[in-house]
Amino acid sequence: MPDSLASSVDELDLVDQHCHSTVRGELDLDGLLGFLTESAWPDRRSGNSPLGLAVRRWCAPVLELPRHTPLPEYVRRRAELGTEEVTRRFVGEVGLAELLVDSGPGSQALLELPEFSVAACVPVREIVRLEAVAESLDMAGVAGEDFPSAFRAALSEAPAVGWKTVAAYRYGLDLDPRRPTDAEVAEAAGRWLPSGSRLTDPVLLRFLLWSAADTGRPIQVHCGLGDPDETLRRADPAFLQPFLHEVRTPVVLLHCYPYHRQAAYLAHAYPHVYLDVGLALNYVGAAATTILGEVLELAPFHKVLYSSDAYGLPELYFLGATLFRRSLTEVLDRWVLRDDVSLGDAHTIAADIAAGNARELYGL
Amino acid sequence: MPDSLASSVDELDLVDQHCHSTVRGELDLDGLLGFLTESAWPDRRSGNSPLGLAVRRWCAPVLELPRHTPLPEYVRRRAELGTEEVTRRFVGEVGLAELLVDSGPGSQALLELPEFSVAACVPVREIVRLEAVAESLDMAGVAGEDFPSAFRAALSEAPAVGWKTVAAYRYGLDLDPRRPTDAEVAEAAGRWLPSGSRLTDPVLLRFLLWSAADTGRPIQVHCGLGDPDETLRRADPAFLQPFLHEVRTPVVLLHCYPYHRQAAYLAHAYPHVYLDVGLALNYVGAAATTILGEVLELAPFHKVLYSSDAYGLPELYFLGATLFRRSLTEVLDRWVLRDDVSLGDAHTIAADIAAGNARELYGL
Amino acid sequence: MPDSLASSVDELDLVDQHCHSTVRGELDLDGLLGFLTESAWPDRRSGNSPLGLAVRRWCAPVLELPRHTPLPEYVRRRAELGTEEVTRRFVGEVGLAELLVDSGPGSQALLELPEFSVAACVPVREIVRLEAVAESLDMAGVAGEDFPSAFRAALSEAPAVGWKTVAAYRYGLDLDPRRPTDAEVAEAAGRWLPSGSRLTDPVLLRFLLWSAADTGRPIQVHCGLGDPDETLRRADPAFLQPFLHEVRTPVVLLHCYPYHRQAAYLAHAYPHVYLDVGLALNYVGAAATTILGEVLELAPFHKVLYSSDAYGLPELYFLGATLFRRSLTEVLDRWVLRDDVSLGDAHTIAADIAAGNARELYGL
Repeated sequence: MPDSLASSVDELDLVDQHCHSTVRGELDLDGLLGFLTESAWPDRRSGNSPLGLAVRRWCAPVLELPRHTPLPEYVRRRAELGTEEVTRRFVGEVGLAELLVDSGPGSQALLELPEFSVAACVPVREIVRLEAVAESLDMAGVAGEDFPSAFRAALSEAPAVGWKTVAAYRYGLDLDPRRPTDAEVAEAAGRWLPSGSRLTDPVLLRFLLWSAADTGRPIQVHCGLGDPDETLRRADPAFLQPFLHEVRTPVVLLHCYPYHRQAAYLAHAYPHVYLDVGLALNYVGAAATTILGEVLELAPFHKVLYSSDAYGLPELYFLGATLFRRSLTEVLDRWVLRDDVSLGDAHTIAADIAAGNARELYGL
Repeated sequence: MPDSLASSVDELDLVDQHCHSTVRGELDLDGLLGFLTESAWPDRRSGNSPLGLAVRRWCAPVLELPRHTPLPEYVRRRAELGTEEVTRRFVGEVGLAELLVDSGPGSQALLELPEFSVAACVPVREIVRLEAVAESLDMAGVAGEDFPSAFRAALSEAPAVGWKTVAAYRYGLDLDPRRPTDAEVAEAAGRWLPSGSRLTDPVLLRFLLWSAADTGRPIQVHCGLGDPDETLRRADPAFLQPFLHEVRTPVVLLHCYPYHRQAAYLAHAYPHVYLDVGLALNYVGAAATTILGEVLELAPFHKVLYSSDAYGLPELYFLGATLFRRSLTEVLDRWVLRDDVSLGDAHTIAADIAAGNARELYGL
Repeated sequence: MPDSLASSVDELDLVDQHCHSTVRGELDLDGLLGFLTESAWPDRRSGNSPLGLAVRRWCAPVLELPRHTPLPEYVRRRAELGTEEVTRRFVGEVGLAELLVDSGPGSQALLELPEFSVAACVPVREIVRLEAVAESLDMAGVAGEDFPSAFRAALSEAPAVGWKTVAAYRYGLDLDPRRPTDAEVAEAAGRWLPSGSRLTDPVLLRFLLWSAADTGRPIQVHCGLGDPDETLRRADPAFLQPFLHEVRTPVVLLHCYPYHRQAAYLAHAYPHVYLDVGLALNYVGAAATTILGEVLELAPFHKVLYSSDAYGLPELYFLGATLFRRSLTEVLDRWVLRDDVSLGDAHTIAADIAAGNARELYGL
């Protein structure tokens, strides 16, 4: 019976509710390695890690290489096949029903969303990054007091199924939870707009969050591990609790590691709070089952979502999906074997986490 | 040999050192679901969780239903049997030698302690909640300066085998550890008494703690997960360390999840610190073995206690006991199988955690 | 095949990159128990813990006693053999290729380093404790403004392969990351030097750290669990991130439990950050595999080091090594069995963590 759970999970459609676009060009070894670490200083040993092992284990066979092929040889084969073919194999043929793509960190090196959808042969919808919206407003010569209405107008025109905030990078999640007044926002905007710098003012970050909450559309919040531009300790989702207490708009806590138990508690305690462990599953590789198991200690089953947080490298869409299917199967199989859940309920839980919860949340 | 550990753990008496009373009346589905979540906003999916699965798995057979019976059908059968019979089955016949009941959150909906003891056919002793004592003082027209002596007198008359504080709810465990002066207390009481509001002043909360410490009786401290009236982050028991450093009265850290490793460290470092993972065991259901295993990474075996933190629902006394017996057996069995402990020592450890440590601590 | 991993790990040379010297005299039961807890108040039950079980399980057979021999009997046998023989068996014959010894907490009760090296029949190199250097300067009558140059001179003459800081004990890791100015240091030193008290001033602690960073030699930082002289919460290595962001000198995060996942993240994100879970492995005994597994969720394999943090008791060198070999084997075996890694790569990872990474880092 557990075998049938494994095979059914392998066949489940996935909605990857938080990912990015893929790179446009070919990658050499250093290029590949740069995508296998959150470090800002990748080097030749950046693949000497759980993620590096997972790429060699799971991705090599997709390129007709033996399991555990070393990365230099892997990269040569990858170049032979070409980016287009590699993208097709790793994104287009792995059971992804739909991708919700964070279009925020736009880069010349990445495919535009329509290109990406074609390359991947997968429908794509857009998650719009709040800070990117604020920073792309053409505010030349505009006074701070016009910022609130300009930002709200930009949100109302954005083709977003949901929002994303990187407040954890820009300040920390230890934000004052209160909605700032228009006067406070105008004053902070008046200081920020002429500076030309990126948005890090906590009053403005709070304004972005509250404006997104007013739209009623889900807000994804980067939590937990990321690159060293962020202070890990201040990315603990538990800091968000006072804000979560104030709003009723759905909030999705992303990644969360090593604070994923805190995130699962919040999803348990607040009806509008959801979570995934996107980025973490890829990075921990062989240990993905442990992490997903820790999330499922406390999180209600209709509050857990799937994402890969894949960025740039086609492999990461496939690897995220593979590690997710494997870890979800292992957690639920163990429960079925110990008779903690019926096989039928385990199937339902798996299908909900794989796609159903995201479809309901985003109205897909 | 490990089998004999399992059967002996199943036969061990338990002292449930922190629980509450049961509901007086019948429960419909919504009523049941309200007891299966710490959320303040329960809904029809509140049982779609590890705890919901555990109730269906372990409690349904006690009502002669198949394992995994869905909750609506489960509630119908429950109503057929009636609250009295359900309470007897789930509290009276599950090996509970003694219950230490937190009488604090008094409610018309719950049985009085003597009624509860009769209904459950189990001896009951009282854990008295410090904040409830303070709030129940008849202080009409009393000056703030009389509060310290009035509170101390109330403690001296309370029929308590131990105290409980919910300072984590009222302020946070990040309290100044120092004993406040009488003048500080009088001033804070002078502000609070006329307000009619619940006690949240940190000076008064510290005074309650120190007054309890002066009695020498054990003080239970709510730590970690609870309902959203509490800020999780500030319920980390590690915040208590400076206070623990100052007192020598026994302190019992309750629940503690997801900060239970921090609590186990404190129980290791301070001879007067104890812990349980009461509430957590029920909520995590199938994962109880993981949590208890994490506590037993560092906690001395004479410092770990059993509790269910059951509240209202008779099922939770039984389920807490069942998940505790199972997880304790699994952790110790694994050690026995790997020869990390002798079978005899494993028996002793199990019996101490189940009841012996609590009997010694509370002088039962 | 996994069997061959176990046997090869058992034969690997170990570099114990953080330990202390052993006691000079004989130990009675209370003396032994004092070394089996981080509590400042050891008692007759201090061995009723995971570490106590581990000593009885693993160390008793080395003294030709049955596994799980109770500690009173164990101590009698130990006394029969004598300290010299016990030290030889537990330190000299367990595959330790080299010890890096923290000479900081000098004590009459401990062997001097040259004596220790002879007693243990193992080469020893010195890790010099920054706070001990500062406190041992003969500053009588010296003005605060001379402290910076005197301290730098002392570092330049110290026979250190690396440094150690106990800033977590003296203040907390929540230090301002900035390099203090000479004027700030002079002022703080002017206050501290005449006081005769131990160094706890955060400006001076930062100066010590920055001075060590200027030498380019690795800096070991005590993180996570320790004795109750330290506030656990403020020993979270995540507090160090702002400092780690500023320096490029290698920093080794020691122990780290229960914040070892945070430490593994830092080792992932920063090329100059390393970690071990030294002290934790001994204390958690049977659970060492869980802890090492959690480190290997995210840490690059060339960033993980071995240490025992053994102090005083010869048993702890052996036990640390034994628990490390067993847990490393179990984590990697599981990966091999699931085909998450090739056997050859698993061997390489094991050898690097056991000794190779330390040899490269310290230039041994």
